[in-house]
Amino acid sequence: MKATVLVRPKQGILDPQGQAVESSLRQLGFSVGGARIGRVVDLDVDAADAAAARAEVERMCEQLLANPLIESYEIELAEPQA
Amino acid sequence: MKATVLVRPKQGILDPQGQAVESSLRQLGFSVGGARIGRVVDLDVDAADAAAARAEVERMCEQLLANPLIESYEIELAEPQA
Repeated sequence: MKATVLVRPKQGILDPQGQAVESSLRQLGFSVGGARIGRVVDLDVDAADAAAARAEVERMCEQLLANPLIESYEIELAEPQA
Repeated sequence: MKATVLVRPKQGILDPQGQAVESSLRQLGFSVGGARIGRVVDLDVDAADAAAARAEVERMCEQLLANPLIESYEIELAEPQA
């Protein structure tokens, strides 16, 4: 089952990469009010059903994909094809 | 207007970060069939409407946020609150 995880810096956590992008965009003439950079992880998970897949991906996030102290994550599962 | 950009390595492009994550997940005992890592960029764009915002963000992607040779991008605009 395909899963997509979005990992973002939590609110209030400094994001130097986002600040650099924001400042570069302004220098290029774009008017942006803020930029935050995170990671997107696309995974193919072996799981019997959507609930099992979500639980498995949550364990992956806690153990490896995200740093829960400073990052939040969001899990999206691809709808299985009918 | 809030916009979210997902930047991913194109198919066929080597993704060493994804390979490292996949191998680490396997070592942790997870059964995954592939992992690809990209970036998520959250932006606040000044634009009159959704079409203008999308066009603006597309220009940002071409100029700074993505490398069109090796990366593809996907733009999602947050629905304005009613």
